[in-house]
Amino acid sequence: MRRLGSQKKMPTESQIISRLKDLARVDKRVLVGIGDDAAVIKSPDGSGERDLLACCDLMVEGVHFRSHWAPPRLLGARALAVNLSDIAAMGGVPRFAMVSVALPHKLSAEFIDDVFRGLFDLAEASGVSIVGGDTSSSLDSFFIDVSVIGDCASGKAVTRGGAKIGDSICVSGSLGSSALGLALLEEGRRLGDGSDFQDALLKHLKPEPRLSLGRALGEAGLATAMIDISDGLSTDLWHLLDESKCGAVIHANAIPIADCVHRYTSSAPTASPLQLALNSGEEYELLFTATAEDAAKIELVSKALVVPITRIGEVVGGGELQLETGGRLESLPRSGYEHVI
Amino acid sequence: MRRLGSQKKMPTESQIISRLKDLARVDKRVLVGIGDDAAVIKSPDGSGERDLLACCDLMVEGVHFRSHWAPPRLLGARALAVNLSDIAAMGGVPRFAMVSVALPHKLSAEFIDDVFRGLFDLAEASGVSIVGGDTSSSLDSFFIDVSVIGDCASGKAVTRGGAKIGDSICVSGSLGSSALGLALLEEGRRLGDGSDFQDALLKHLKPEPRLSLGRALGEAGLATAMIDISDGLSTDLWHLLDESKCGAVIHANAIPIADCVHRYTSSAPTASPLQLALNSGEEYELLFTATAEDAAKIELVSKALVVPITRIGEVVGGGELQLETGGRLESLPRSGYEHVI
Repeated sequence: MRRLGSQKKMPTESQIISRLKDLARVDKRVLVGIGDDAAVIKSPDGSGERDLLACCDLMVEGVHFRSHWAPPRLLGARALAVNLSDIAAMGGVPRFAMVSVALPHKLSAEFIDDVFRGLFDLAEASGVSIVGGDTSSSLDSFFIDVSVIGDCASGKAVTRGGAKIGDSICVSGSLGSSALGLALLEEGRRLGDGSDFQDALLKHLKPEPRLSLGRALGEAGLATAMIDISDGLSTDLWHLLDESKCGAVIHANAIPIADCVHRYTSSAPTASPLQLALNSGEEYELLFTATAEDAAKIELVSKALVVPITRIGEVVGGGELQLETGGRLESLPRSGYEHVI
Repeated sequence: MRRLGSQKKMPTESQIISRLKDLARVDKRVLVGIGDDAAVIKSPDGSGERDLLACCDLMVEGVHFRSHWAPPRLLGARALAVNLSDIAAMGGVPRFAMVSVALPHKLSAEFIDDVFRGLFDLAEASGVSIVGGDTSSSLDSFFIDVSVIGDCASGKAVTRGGAKIGDSICVSGSLGSSALGLALLEEGRRLGDGSDFQDALLKHLKPEPRLSLGRALGEAGLATAMIDISDGLSTDLWHLLDESKCGAVIHANAIPIADCVHRYTSSAPTASPLQLALNSGEEYELLFTATAEDAAKIELVSKALVVPITRIGEVVGGGELQLETGGRLESLPRSGYEHVI
């Protein structure tokens, strides 16, 4: 997740992940371990028809959110939603969740209850059962860590590593509004305050994980690789390309930019809609690759689920990510937003 | 887990758990949900030979531990160990873990690496694979939440709710040293500082979950109910009795008290070894009930695993927990240590 402030000198998230990968033991039941959107585990019997998926996401007050930015119900829902998005990005179905919270004393009993209500309401709506958790006081910040267990048809989990040269690169929905919403929140705008761009605030505060789409793509075997957009299109595409060991060209004029971003930038000429769309984190849209032959099937899925899917580019050889604008190519560096912790 | 300080006015952990139970949806795959040591879930296929177990435990700096009290390796190991103890208390086998950490900037890269090393070393030694996690910065406290997925033979999970009138009440190991260790740490004693009672410090800082014992009792069907001692013998026995809807008598002279507690209290006449043993949290010993007919089998398991098991009392009717001392009975209130958060 994107961080609100910037901090230095600590290891980056990718450095820690790389270190943890080194430390991890070999386990033949672990089909995909540390480093993808979720782990993929062979079912306990080893002969099951479903593989397990498991992931966790941590939200820290002052780092990922501010308590006064949104009703507590949205905070609770968001803590679960970001995990559901991870399961969607594996092509799976979320089933069970656990929630750990550390609660500072400043929070009222009503606030805490609303956080849980928001989380449980989204769980109910998503067919997820909350099966456990832990609670603690906290001396200062509010922490909420949710872990989710899901499953997918055996061998059907969609990793970041399956893209092949010639595949199309597709993205769901439209991009840029989460970063816009975050910027507006930082300026002091709030949900329901009558200001413009409520849609951008909502996109940031109430992400809607693409569960149906992820599951449909996974079950039909239509996505060769997939990731959810939590760090921004360019950074997350880099993650996918790194794991797939290939490059990509994406087309500036194909990238779907949210309406509210166009509306906003039309009166704020220093802001670039394309830059917002390329770098906006916490969109929780799905970014995936698919063979050219499956284009018609993907269009069918898009129509059936009423989820826009846009082809924004193609997978190529080499290890570069290039942006094509009016026939000119420029490299997009790997150094998009990185979690510095 | 026991808290270092006492705090007021916030809902207690049991109030939150009760609220969450109300909110939880009915799910026929969830055999045991919120409120036991771990959740029990039917395997994905629904026809599997193994049920899934899932639990999580949160450690917050200043609430559950202080960073300068122990080498960071022990902190990391402890965050996993308390979860392994939960799986042991269900009679299961831990398989996979995820770890979420929020790291304040004051921590060095070496400290962080040592925390992970401690956690991964214990995982390796316990046959557990770390399959994922999340990292974040933290504005202030160090926060570590570990979730574990395990399994057990289908239908064999040992809950807190199966004790029957006439069952024996048994406990592994000896009690009291974790509370003594905590008190000594608060006085400024440290591991390796040459002071007495290093065994008490170790028991507190490096709990050794009773994995083999829990698994053996679960697989052999010898425990009718089980819980691990995280809040203290009397409080955790209350948890077990409440879920089993019965009462108990335990015998003061049968309760196994750690040698170091006797050594300590012999020179500190105001401290009561029995009170320490009754109320010492974070012991991570197993407290379980068993039928009288299985006494010989339990003795066999105890010998085979070289783990002391002591019969400390019996399950009775009614809803009371009574302590027998020299033929006299006194009630032990439910109000042992409660997590006030």
